[in-house]
Amino acid sequence: MAERLSNILEMIKPLDERAMAAARARQDTLTKPQGSLGRLEELSVQLAGIQGKPIPQIRHKAIITMASDHGVVAEGVSAYPKEVTTQMVYNFLGGGAGINVIARQVGARIIVVDIGVATELEPSPQLLSRKVGFGTKNMALGPAMTREQAVTAIETGIEVVAGEVAKGLDIVGTGDIGIGNTTASSAICAVMTGSPVAEVTGRGTGIADKQLLHKIEVIERALAVNHPDPDQPLDVLAKVGGFEIGGLAGVMLGGAAHRIPVVIDGFISGAAALIATALSPKLKDFLIAAHVSAEPGHRLLPQHLGLKPLLDLGMRLGEGTGAALGIFLAETAARVLAEMATFAEAGVSERDEPGS
Amino acid sequence: MAERLSNILEMIKPLDERAMAAARARQDTLTKPQGSLGRLEELSVQLAGIQGKPIPQIRHKAIITMASDHGVVAEGVSAYPKEVTTQMVYNFLGGGAGINVIARQVGARIIVVDIGVATELEPSPQLLSRKVGFGTKNMALGPAMTREQAVTAIETGIEVVAGEVAKGLDIVGTGDIGIGNTTASSAICAVMTGSPVAEVTGRGTGIADKQLLHKIEVIERALAVNHPDPDQPLDVLAKVGGFEIGGLAGVMLGGAAHRIPVVIDGFISGAAALIATALSPKLKDFLIAAHVSAEPGHRLLPQHLGLKPLLDLGMRLGEGTGAALGIFLAETAARVLAEMATFAEAGVSERDEPGS
Repeated sequence: MAERLSNILEMIKPLDERAMAAARARQDTLTKPQGSLGRLEELSVQLAGIQGKPIPQIRHKAIITMASDHGVVAEGVSAYPKEVTTQMVYNFLGGGAGINVIARQVGARIIVVDIGVATELEPSPQLLSRKVGFGTKNMALGPAMTREQAVTAIETGIEVVAGEVAKGLDIVGTGDIGIGNTTASSAICAVMTGSPVAEVTGRGTGIADKQLLHKIEVIERALAVNHPDPDQPLDVLAKVGGFEIGGLAGVMLGGAAHRIPVVIDGFISGAAALIATALSPKLKDFLIAAHVSAEPGHRLLPQHLGLKPLLDLGMRLGEGTGAALGIFLAETAARVLAEMATFAEAGVSERDEPGS
Repeated sequence: MAERLSNILEMIKPLDERAMAAARARQDTLTKPQGSLGRLEELSVQLAGIQGKPIPQIRHKAIITMASDHGVVAEGVSAYPKEVTTQMVYNFLGGGAGINVIARQVGARIIVVDIGVATELEPSPQLLSRKVGFGTKNMALGPAMTREQAVTAIETGIEVVAGEVAKGLDIVGTGDIGIGNTTASSAICAVMTGSPVAEVTGRGTGIADKQLLHKIEVIERALAVNHPDPDQPLDVLAKVGGFEIGGLAGVMLGGAAHRIPVVIDGFISGAAALIATALSPKLKDFLIAAHVSAEPGHRLLPQHLGLKPLLDLGMRLGEGTGAALGIFLAETAARVLAEMATFAEAGVSERDEPGS
């Protein structure tokens, strides 16, 4: 394993128990029945443990959206033509995509990363050009990428998040664009969770029944051709993954190493989390699952990763749209802990003896 | 029925189907797979139908939090002493309560209404003094209020929301504070849904097992003493309700009459919605259920009201905290519809023929 990657894995330490205990204790002094803000209270404690602060702060927010193409699109697995990856990158840069709208609302900056789009993109101040390749190879015929490219993709994510940490970052969300990437994610999900392909494969951007059966068959072929080893996450990423999936795994690992909470989006981010948590089981504590995607494979992931998604709104757009909403809720959690008055401050009577 | 109330009921008209069709059509031209923003897309269409605009706008946001006391507290049904209602009103006015924090985050103004607190409150520019009484009577011994008070409470809510409409209002959330009000809400819920009291009664602010059994017994006694008639919502409100519950029912009816979307909070708002929708079944289309409260009775309400709550975060604070989060999501829905680029604008290819 490359040095940068192994260094980062070593940097991921457990949550700060003292900060968490302090956050929990403060929650119980705030003017509300104990526990009455439910998941928001739990989330505030997790944020305290990650940031190592009794009162965590969420001010600098970013969504890192990784874009890449997939050779497997040649098999006809998507409802949209391959050019859409490139076109959507320009849509992000123009501010017109779903993620732009929601990120503006929550006050998060967006970093668009070309980690493997198949075309040469025009430079833009908002675009990071970090191509690992011009799209992956067709995994139905052989490995999607080399082992070296898999490591480079992860290290790219680590670098990108480190760059954002340097600018000021309290929370990061993961996002993706890449026609064909639900196919790669279903393949990863099948291998890493040991589930039948048909159970973890969905309609992606909206394919019909016949094409869904074809997509399942293509993934089964990719697994038969490549024999990815579930005990070796880099092998799985290389054989049936995608550059953006590796990159997002890197964002998660790098975020955790820098003690930044990472809000993961839907199915593609979930596949990246399967790879990343296999590399570092401690990573799980740094992840916040924003939502349950409408993709069927995604329903398995929270269980497999031990995460409880915050939202279930039937979303399946990707881009980081779910993550942006999760960032909003994380900010709510942090603000409640920081800004609510205590019983003493507000002169509010505490509860009578329990059971009285 | 009083004139103001019957006028308002007549003002509630169906949703604007043309605006909804236009919103739906626009959603399908935006740069995303159709339906991929799930509930946010549905919500944008509902907002269009309510506001009567193909592209609804959410700029002026308000939470109306109604405060009142409950005579039934004398029976020992709450974990907190009765003074807490008054103390929490001052906490709202001081900006230190949960609702203050979340409303600040979502940019909603808060209107605190004293509709029946048992003490004389000090005047404040942020407090509307609209007392229908100094707390309700003990419903375990007789009716909580007179029929006239029930009508006045509802009309008060209608007036308050009309005042906010005059200032500019695109969406309103409902909130409550009142020690003892989960007891009244459980009673309403049992009567209006025909459920056993034990199934719709929970721990409120956090009572222990023994006190929960006592609370159930008190509610059963109140129902036996008063015989509220489920076919007469005003009778139910008067006999086992609360002033803030009537007031919130009025906010809902008044909001719908003025074509303002009403985001309802948790269990107390749900009880108010049972009363209000019984008065006007058309009201349902104007309501957005923010979340499922942790109170067991609340799990029945969405089903009974035909609403699908947006969030399930284990919250049970009331005050409008859930509604504030729902307002945020409604704003997201409206922004997505208004601000996303269309395929044509962004030069993004549309999908290949379905099933190809």
